[in-house]
This record gives sequence, C-alpha cells and structure tokens, in this order.
Amino acid sequence: MPAAFDLAGWSRHHLDRVERALGQWVGEGAPAGLGEAMRYAVLDGGKRLRPLLVLAAYEAVHNGAGPTGSDTALRAGMDEATLRAGMDEAALRAACAVELIHAYSLVHDDMPCMDNDVLRRGKPTVHVQFGEAQALLAGDALQAFAFELLTPDDARIPPAVQATLCRQLARAAGSAGMAGGQAIDLASVGLALTQEQLRQMHRLKTGALLQASVMMGAACGGAGATAQKALEGYGAALGLAFQVVDDILDVVADSATLGKTAGKDAASDKPTYVSLLGLAPAQAHAQELLAQAQAALAASGLADTRALAALADMVVNRSY
Amino acid sequence: MPAAFDLAGWSRHHLDRVERALGQWVGEGAPAGLGEAMRYAVLDGGKRLRPLLVLAAYEAVHNGAGPTGSDTALRAGMDEATLRAGMDEAALRAACAVELIHAYSLVHDDMPCMDNDVLRRGKPTVHVQFGEAQALLAGDALQAFAFELLTPDDARIPPAVQATLCRQLARAAGSAGMAGGQAIDLASVGLALTQEQLRQMHRLKTGALLQASVMMGAACGGAGATAQKALEGYGAALGLAFQVVDDILDVVADSATLGKTAGKDAASDKPTYVSLLGLAPAQAHAQELLAQAQAALAASGLADTRALAALADMVVNRSY
Repeated sequence: MPAAFDLAGWSRHHLDRVERALGQWVGEGAPAGLGEAMRYAVLDGGKRLRPLLVLAAYEAVHNGAGPTGSDTALRAGMDEATLRAGMDEAALRAACAVELIHAYSLVHDDMPCMDNDVLRRGKPTVHVQFGEAQALLAGDALQAFAFELLTPDDARIPPAVQATLCRQLARAAGSAGMAGGQAIDLASVGLALTQEQLRQMHRLKTGALLQASVMMGAACGGAGATAQKALEGYGAALGLAFQVVDDILDVVADSATLGKTAGKDAASDKPTYVSLLGLAPAQAHAQELLAQAQAALAASGLADTRALAALADMVVNRSY
Repeated sequence: MPAAFDLAGWSRHHLDRVERALGQWVGEGAPAGLGEAMRYAVLDGGKRLRPLLVLAAYEAVHNGAGPTGSDTALRAGMDEATLRAGMDEAALRAACAVELIHAYSLVHDDMPCMDNDVLRRGKPTVHVQFGEAQALLAGDALQAFAFELLTPDDARIPPAVQATLCRQLARAAGSAGMAGGQAIDLASVGLALTQEQLRQMHRLKTGALLQASVMMGAACGGAGATAQKALEGYGAALGLAFQVVDDILDVVADSATLGKTAGKDAASDKPTYVSLLGLAPAQAHAQELLAQAQAALAASGLADTRALAALADMVVNRSY
C-alpha cells in the first residue's frame, strides 16, 4: 500500500516547518533562565512523532475533502485562500502544541520525585542541567504555552477550530488522559496487572495524546463523521502499538540507541507488555495493532492516507 | 461608594456556586489517588478571590450592558434566554478555571524543590499528604483541567468566548505571566531589586492571573472597549496591591492567622515591598493602588461596580 511513499522526504519537509516554528515560538518573551530551560526541553531532539501525526491527519483529511469539508470553518464566511492559509496555520500550531505537551511531560517525568532519570534524547535531563525548580517551572510553562499556541489572535483560524483544539488537547493531557495514566503507572509499580489494566494505563498515559494528535489534525482539516470515526480507531491502535514497541525496545535495545536509559522498566519492577506476555507474543501483538491501524485507514473513505500508513509502520518497526 | 453594598452576602452567594461547581467537577473521571490529591488541593480552602473577581466583573459588565453588549455571542444567533444561560455558565466555568490555575501553582510552589513549605491553608501541603510525585501530577492535571473546563461541548457558550477565555488564561498562566514571574522570583533570592524590578516580578507572578480573572469575567459578559480598558487598569492596580499587602502581612501577621508560614520572605532573604520601601511606605503604597483601582472603576462607564469596588477594598484592608 504505502510502498512508493517517501516517508523520509515527507517527514523532512514537515519537520523542517515544525522545527522552525518551535524555534521561533518557544521561550519567546519568557524570562531568560526559564526561556532557556523551555527551549532546551523542546528543541533539537525527539522524533516529533506527534507533530507528524497531526500534519499527516490534516493532509489526509484536507486533500480528501478540500476546504469545503469544513462546515465549521466555512461558517466564518472567509474566501477559500484565506481559509486554506488559516487551516494550514492551525495545523502547524496544533502540531507544535502536542509536542509541547509531550515535552513538558518528559521534563516532569524525569524529575527525581518521578523516574529520576538523568539522560533524555542523549542529553542531561532538564533538572540536571537547570535545577529542579527551573525544570518544574519550565514544564508548567510549556503546558500553558501549548494552549496559548492554539488560541492566537488570528482571524483566519475560526474560533470554533481554536476551541475544539483546546478541548481535545486538554482532555488528552489531563486526569482522564496523560496525567491520569502517569498516576496509574505510579501506583502500579510492583503490582501484577492484567493485560486489560495495562492496556488502560497505556491508553491514558501515551495513547490519549497520540490519538489526540491524529484527531486535532483531523479537526483542522474539517473531517466528516466517517473519517473521524476511522481516524479515532487508527489513533487508538497506533497509540497502543507505540507503547507495546516501547516496552519491547526497553528490553532489546541499548541506552545509546534509545537516547535514554534502557532496561529501566525491569529495573524498577514496572509491569510491561513484555513482562506480561513475553517477548515474542508482544512483538506479534504489535503487528496485530499495526494491521488494525491500517484497516481503519482503509475504512476512512479518505483518498490519500499514505503518510498516516507509513507513520504507523514506522512506529511499529522502529529500532529506537 | 460601596458603603451600602453587602460584600459578605454577595460573596456567600457566589462562593456557594463556585464551591458546588468545583466539588462536582474536580477529580471527576481521574484515577482514585490522583483525583483525591486534586480535590485536596482545590476544595475546602482559600479565599477564592480570583473566582469572585471573575464573577464580579461578569456581573458589572453584564448588568451594565445586557446580553446585547456581546457582539460575538450574538453572532451565534441564539435567543436571549439561551444566550444568558450560556454566559452565566461561561462565567462560572471561568471562575473555577482561574482557581484551578491558582491551586496548581500553590501545589508546585510548595514542593521541596521550590519553597519547601509544609503548611497551606492550615493543612499539610499536597506533597506532604500525598507524596511529591502525586503532587507534581495533581498540579499538572489541574492545569489541563482548567482548559478543559473552558471548552465544554456546550453549544450555549459561543466558540469565540471559549477561545478567548483559553487565550486569556494561557497567557496569564505561562512564561509571560505566572510561571515567568515565579522564575524571576527564583532568580531574585538574595539580590537587591529596584522597585521597578520587584513590580515587574509581581506583575507576572500574581498580577497577571488576578488581572486575567477580571478580564475573563469581562469577556463572558461581552464588555465593550471602554469597559475593557478600565477593567484592565482596575485589574493591574488590584493585582499589584494584592502583592504589596501580602508582603506586609508576611511581616505583621502570624502563621495561624495566615494559614501558612509567616515571616518566610525575610527568612529566605526574598526581596519584598516591605524590605524595599519599609513598612509604613508599603502600607501607603497599597492605599494608593486601591485609589487607582477605584478610579478605574469610576471611568469604566459601567452602572454597578460595587462588588468590584468592595473586593478591591477587601484585598487591601484584609488581615490574612
């Protein structure tokens, strides 16, 4: 299906836009020390999977349906070129916003009272580099900045789109999403979880934000009901697959390849898919989830889902 | 001016609404431990100054102009009763959202890597009660929840109002607002600040959220340009006065009255208005700022600003 699709080229193009936008926006107007910590936490690192999911979903919906697919946006009564520019801008902002939420969660997660990790993306973690207090504040400020990015004084982005993006991101980041999943994770150390409990934890901890990335892209493109439902299924399968593969890599890869400390799940007695299912069945499960994600795309009715398909493939078959 | 205004009765009525809403919403759907920590951080404590400012500004604008003052909201094409109910709901949500941001900042501020405080509102602080990791997550989740509260799937609240509220709150909470002010505060310990530097720090650290509370209430009510400008001035003066009085109380009150540790500014060698100006001049400065706030209200063109006036008076003349 995505055989002829050049994911590397597609990613390069979009990552360039995302990196430039983040480089321009993050830490702007912040007091010097705080701005530096925020930029350190966000720039020059990470696979940027979430931004790419936003942009791939946006493109799939946008190219599939065109601006006329956006009922909400059209109500604002703008001409088509302005509308298109506004939607492009909204998608870029959404792409950056989800990355800010992801980055802040890593900063807080690495702190001594949580995972107490000193290495992230091959660099000293933020609290090691800037101190714990600054790391705490930088994470807090990054979360706020995500919502600021989604709500610019930009008349080309319809308020309904801005409000929807905030709603999606807030739910995915909060107590019924990422933060909730982290709390369950915290309470699960040393416990024997069932596969269903493990699935629920990861659905919140990493799945919610990955799925929201897809759905925020879809919202910027003005997705219809069928496409939305299909993309929800794609996002759910991809989100879960991401975590299963993370658990596998924690066992089979080394720290240098991962850019973070390997083997720490086992060392900290955390339940994982590998500890629960065994290595080979976990790998098979990841492939099943990949097939589910691809099946959802096929049912979406969207004309070109090659980038989304290639991203799912990359998530499952990555080596770091 | 506000001689005949019953602030206590007015506050009781509105606090009752706010407490009920917070009690219903906070921690709902969160994993048990996290939800408990979130509720502990928010419920049964605090003066709720920020929610009261939201509601007082909303009422002043709403009663001054009526729903027809809200150009934006009217564009949504709703009948007047529905519009009114939506505006009331938006104001209540905004009132709760600013309190959530305030509460989360206290939770993180009290942590060992920041102020390392064990007493807040007369109770053990969140990290003492629930552990540092849970406190960190509860703060993070409360911030996300503030934005979730502002963006309900509620067609009575126009998307433009939802987006505006998120914009105002995100700016006030982030690196050019509260978090930025905390970072400056952190970097200022032991330094000799000028009055201007001290003012700038507090304008961000506490002033931005207090001013945003006023402006979010104004936005819910659909304030016109004149009222907005006046309320901005009111909010700025009140925000600064709040901090000057805080600095005074840190010196003149005891821990039992304050519900938090007194004298800790001096103990931690933090610059304050009292250390910079002396006690009596700081007290005079607070009264000047009160006069500025009242003058701004007089220039607002709003018919009834008694609640806002009484709240400013309360802020400056409070004893805890």
